[in-house]
Amino acid sequence: MRPARLEAFSDGVFAIAATLLVLELRVPRGSPDLERALLEEWPAYAAYLVSFMTIGIIWVNHHTLLEHIRRVDRPFLYLNLFLLIWVAIVPFPTSVVDEYILIEGAATVALVLYGGVALLIAIAFSGLFFYATHDERLVSDRAYARRIRAEGRLFPIGLVAYSAGIALAFVVPVASLAVYGLTALFYALPRLPIAPQR
Amino acid sequence: MRPARLEAFSDGVFAIAATLLVLELRVPRGSPDLERALLEEWPAYAAYLVSFMTIGIIWVNHHTLLEHIRRVDRPFLYLNLFLLIWVAIVPFPTSVVDEYILIEGAATVALVLYGGVALLIAIAFSGLFFYATHDERLVSDRAYARRIRAEGRLFPIGLVAYSAGIALAFVVPVASLAVYGLTALFYALPRLPIAPQR
Amino acid sequence: MRPARLEAFSDGVFAIAATLLVLELRVPRGSPDLERALLEEWPAYAAYLVSFMTIGIIWVNHHTLLEHIRRVDRPFLYLNLFLLIWVAIVPFPTSVVDEYILIEGAATVALVLYGGVALLIAIAFSGLFFYATHDERLVSDRAYARRIRAEGRLFPIGLVAYSAGIALAFVVPVASLAVYGLTALFYALPRLPIAPQR
Amino acid sequence: MRPARLEAFSDGVFAIAATLLVLELRVPRGSPDLERALLEEWPAYAAYLVSFMTIGIIWVNHHTLLEHIRRVDRPFLYLNLFLLIWVAIVPFPTSVVDEYILIEGAATVALVLYGGVALLIAIAFSGLFFYATHDERLVSDRAYARRIRAEGRLFPIGLVAYSAGIALAFVVPVASLAVYGLTALFYALPRLPIAPQR
Repeated sequence: MRPARLEAFSDGVFAIAATLLVLELRVPRGSPDLERALLEEWPAYAAYLVSFMTIGIIWVNHHTLLEHIRRVDRPFLYLNLFLLIWVAIVPFPTSVVDEYILIEGAATVALVLYGGVALLIAIAFSGLFFYATHDERLVSDRAYARRIRAEGRLFPIGLVAYSAGIALAFVVPVASLAVYGLTALFYALPRLPIAPQR
Repeated sequence: MRPARLEAFSDGVFAIAATLLVLELRVPRGSPDLERALLEEWPAYAAYLVSFMTIGIIWVNHHTLLEHIRRVDRPFLYLNLFLLIWVAIVPFPTSVVDEYILIEGAATVALVLYGGVALLIAIAFSGLFFYATHDERLVSDRAYARRIRAEGRLFPIGLVAYSAGIALAFVVPVASLAVYGLTALFYALPRLPIAPQR
Repeated sequence: MRPARLEAFSDGVFAIAATLLVLELRVPRGSPDLERALLEEWPAYAAYLVSFMTIGIIWVNHHTLLEHIRRVDRPFLYLNLFLLIWVAIVPFPTSVVDEYILIEGAATVALVLYGGVALLIAIAFSGLFFYATHDERLVSDRAYARRIRAEGRLFPIGLVAYSAGIALAFVVPVASLAVYGLTALFYALPRLPIAPQR
Repeated sequence: MRPARLEAFSDGVFAIAATLLVLELRVPRGSPDLERALLEEWPAYAAYLVSFMTIGIIWVNHHTLLEHIRRVDRPFLYLNLFLLIWVAIVPFPTSVVDEYILIEGAATVALVLYGGVALLIAIAFSGLFFYATHDERLVSDRAYARRIRAEGRLFPIGLVAYSAGIALAFVVPVASLAVYGLTALFYALPRLPIAPQR
């Protein structure tokens, strides 16, 4: 089975989930002081940026992984679906964070929810990665398979970082959002070797 | 006519319908107990999962069917459009189920509506399948055409299962949603042979 | 310039506009009689079907036209953008029709608006068609160019039908929606010859 | 790395952002005079048109730039993500403009916000352009690289025009929206040479 359509469907879900985030930015209605009303929505902008970055960077890694893959099988399709189900849900915890980040107590719940979804995305992506590179089944080249798997050793760092962010939500919720943003950036570091021209 | 653009348009509709489901997950506004408010929304999460799985798995089967197809003709395009119209409407019955699953009487109506749409998707997909594999018109290989059609004998099971789910909605509505979820999983079983590399 | 990306962007807009229509189907909130509340929404279902068909069928024709095209130039890109702007707006008149089709006076305004957008889509598509097939500039084959242009002679029928629907909106608004649906079906008739395998 | 999937993801974001704009066109509910209610929404239509044009024309330029590119690297992917984050947010300032364009004082804030996002898109696109064409790293042909870079000399005009529009928002807010529309049209002028057939 060719990976082309898997990419098309996945790209669709990534792009739509990222773009739907904008619907969570609520326009203040009939505000007497628009400038202040817009500035007071800063948690919405922060959550928008962290979520867009998280989705965008996972997309770059997904893209890079798929570049190395010669064929996909049914388990891979379902693992990918498992990843997409959590990517597609991102606008929901983003919106919960927008609404509750400044409210004591509720902020912790909101950021644990957000971190939980981020963690599920990281776990699902790791699963897809290790399934694809396990015993060189799907990758296009044996040498790449080894190099790619070597890179995968860094993934647990991301899982630990998201878990730390969740723990931090019980102490300083706002800092927790910053940890999620930084973890997304961690995933942006160039790790996978670029595939040769085909 | 090449199937590439048919795939692109179909992938778009599948991906968007699946991703729009998240808009049905409503953020509790100004709730004093956010944790409880989120937990009380469990029917919305259950319906989200069943609908995402239903769309995702039909997409995998659509993908697999199209892999075997060499060309498409106009009737195929319109049969495909008939399938997409029901896939695209899924967020509506999902939202009705969210809203009414715990309300006696209305729950039956909601789950009959949901099951009706699921049944229409299953019928439309079967129609597309049998049209495409009928007398080997569109498939790329005679041997495959035979094998694919043989697999199609299992489709009526899905139709019966959805009908049973609709009947069950009159007795135990929540169980009906579980039947719809299990029927989606039934469609996930590997049936169609994987196409050879091209 | 290759038409591939033009197709991808266009397919995206067609697919999203068609799928966003579902957001216009409003779930009755806290209704005591759900069955009746759902049945009373029939204008929304009728408008959903007509709009989905209109977008889906224009997509099929767009697809068929692009199949015959070897290259695209900048004017073609902008003509295509002019078509997409009207396709993307379809959910708006659809929603206005949902809301007002049963209210005397307002129904006429709603259906004139709807017909106006449908007419603009038909005009924009005709423009794209005649630009692309004019003096065989963009099509891949001289014989096809002639045959395609010959088919285009039928387009004015669609323009007249939409105009008649708009006029009818002043007399029997509901019948006007039926005319729009039938005109969409008229565009579904096989007209363009199928391109040979490439 | 092949640019194909970058195009698919980007096309998705462009197409969705453009199509989500329609959700900002609010249907008047239960209006006694529908015609007047619709006509009074003219700022929404104007903002819809300017935003659709802005996104559509940036897409055409993105498309043209990518046509000349042979390969993409990680920095290019992230610069592109930086562009998409601002494209995807366009429905938000569009909606703010809809809501406040006729309210003195707030109109200035709304149009500064809108112009700021437009300026960020223009800066991000220029960054992508100059990165891609810098020392012929990613483009497919040395002669094209030179010609493309020469065209890029015109980009600062767009940046100046958006800045002028922002300044104008403090004096005549409505005129500012017109400047944004005209600047989008300026970007539509054919500048990049068309790539040869490949």
